[in-house]
Amino acid sequence: MQKLDYSAQDKWPRTSGNMQSPIALSDDLAIKNDFQTSLSFDYDYTANYVRDTGAGIEVGLKGHAQLGNRPFTLKQFHIHTPSEHTINKQAYDAEIHFVHEASDGRLAVVAAMVEAGHKSATYEAVLQHMNETTDFDIPVNDIMPEGKEYYHYIGSLTTPPLTENVEWYVLKTPVTLSQEQITHLMAFYSHNNRDLQALNERPIVSSN
Amino acid sequence: MQKLDYSAQDKWPRTSGNMQSPIALSDDLAIKNDFQTSLSFDYDYTANYVRDTGAGIEVGLKGHAQLGNRPFTLKQFHIHTPSEHTINKQAYDAEIHFVHEASDGRLAVVAAMVEAGHKSATYEAVLQHMNETTDFDIPVNDIMPEGKEYYHYIGSLTTPPLTENVEWYVLKTPVTLSQEQITHLMAFYSHNNRDLQALNERPIVSSN
Repeated sequence: MQKLDYSAQDKWPRTSGNMQSPIALSDDLAIKNDFQTSLSFDYDYTANYVRDTGAGIEVGLKGHAQLGNRPFTLKQFHIHTPSEHTINKQAYDAEIHFVHEASDGRLAVVAAMVEAGHKSATYEAVLQHMNETTDFDIPVNDIMPEGKEYYHYIGSLTTPPLTENVEWYVLKTPVTLSQEQITHLMAFYSHNNRDLQALNERPIVSSN
Repeated sequence: MQKLDYSAQDKWPRTSGNMQSPIALSDDLAIKNDFQTSLSFDYDYTANYVRDTGAGIEVGLKGHAQLGNRPFTLKQFHIHTPSEHTINKQAYDAEIHFVHEASDGRLAVVAAMVEAGHKSATYEAVLQHMNETTDFDIPVNDIMPEGKEYYHYIGSLTTPPLTENVEWYVLKTPVTLSQEQITHLMAFYSHNNRDLQALNERPIVSSN
């Protein structure tokens, strides 16, 4: 047994970069959750900015959420086209990321998949306030599905700095934008989805 | 606004290494916890191995814990001399790390500070089974304080691979080994405590 050299701490190897997002989610890989918990949300219906960050359209929105039996605060949501995660090998037209932070600095992202269907009043409101920093009403519930079943795993931000300390909750039930809205969204960003990353033996937890 | 280049993802900058452990904990820096929670433990009283890992003496012990309203499974505990964390600028003679894992792979370490005082029956039992892989009884409660108040922050393992995804719960109430036991422990490792790492604006949460 070789002793760890505490006099050469700056030479210790450090592992990072193997817990990245997005990933390919699947029921085949998923394990069941081992404790009683459900996602709950209390989001405001008033947004306070819309900006194009260079990585996507981002909307300032406040609110609270209980994720895995702990409280989180909503910071913003933003949109990727097409989806970043896949579910059972299926990609979606878009993926909305609700970014939360806990009091200890822990980040959690709730992801809603988007498919073509009913027109979204939230997306219409967002479009009307592009690059504005004024408050405006959004229904928000039309981009958060009623069904809150999810896949959960530990990953990263999907844009630089790709920080690895992120709890992911990817909702199984998609929401809808109209085909016209999706086409419009892709005029802004036709491809701002990061490549799928290696799972590297991370557990995927399924909520049911 | 410059758009993020999705065609050159391999060149995206990645930040890591700024959420390391141990750190200097202090009441001056700590914020109050924003939700009701307490640490609870259900550890076995039977250990199954003792080994010198090269980074310290490690004891195989099973059990369960509720940390921040989520369930974790105990993997092992090990000992650093002197302590790795400091509390209000005070270092301790040793620090015991109880290493836990959740079903999603999340790691959590509960740390108990050690000062000179009553002799520990647990440490005596550990010594008697050094480098053995047989089951043996340990009281374990004598190295886990009755008072479960803690400092919490997000950090890393303190030995390679220094993985950053670790919830820390550093107990405020120390436990004791006899001075003779501490002297004996330091004959194995006089200095297996990692240097204090930069806080880098991470929140420190206090349980009360």
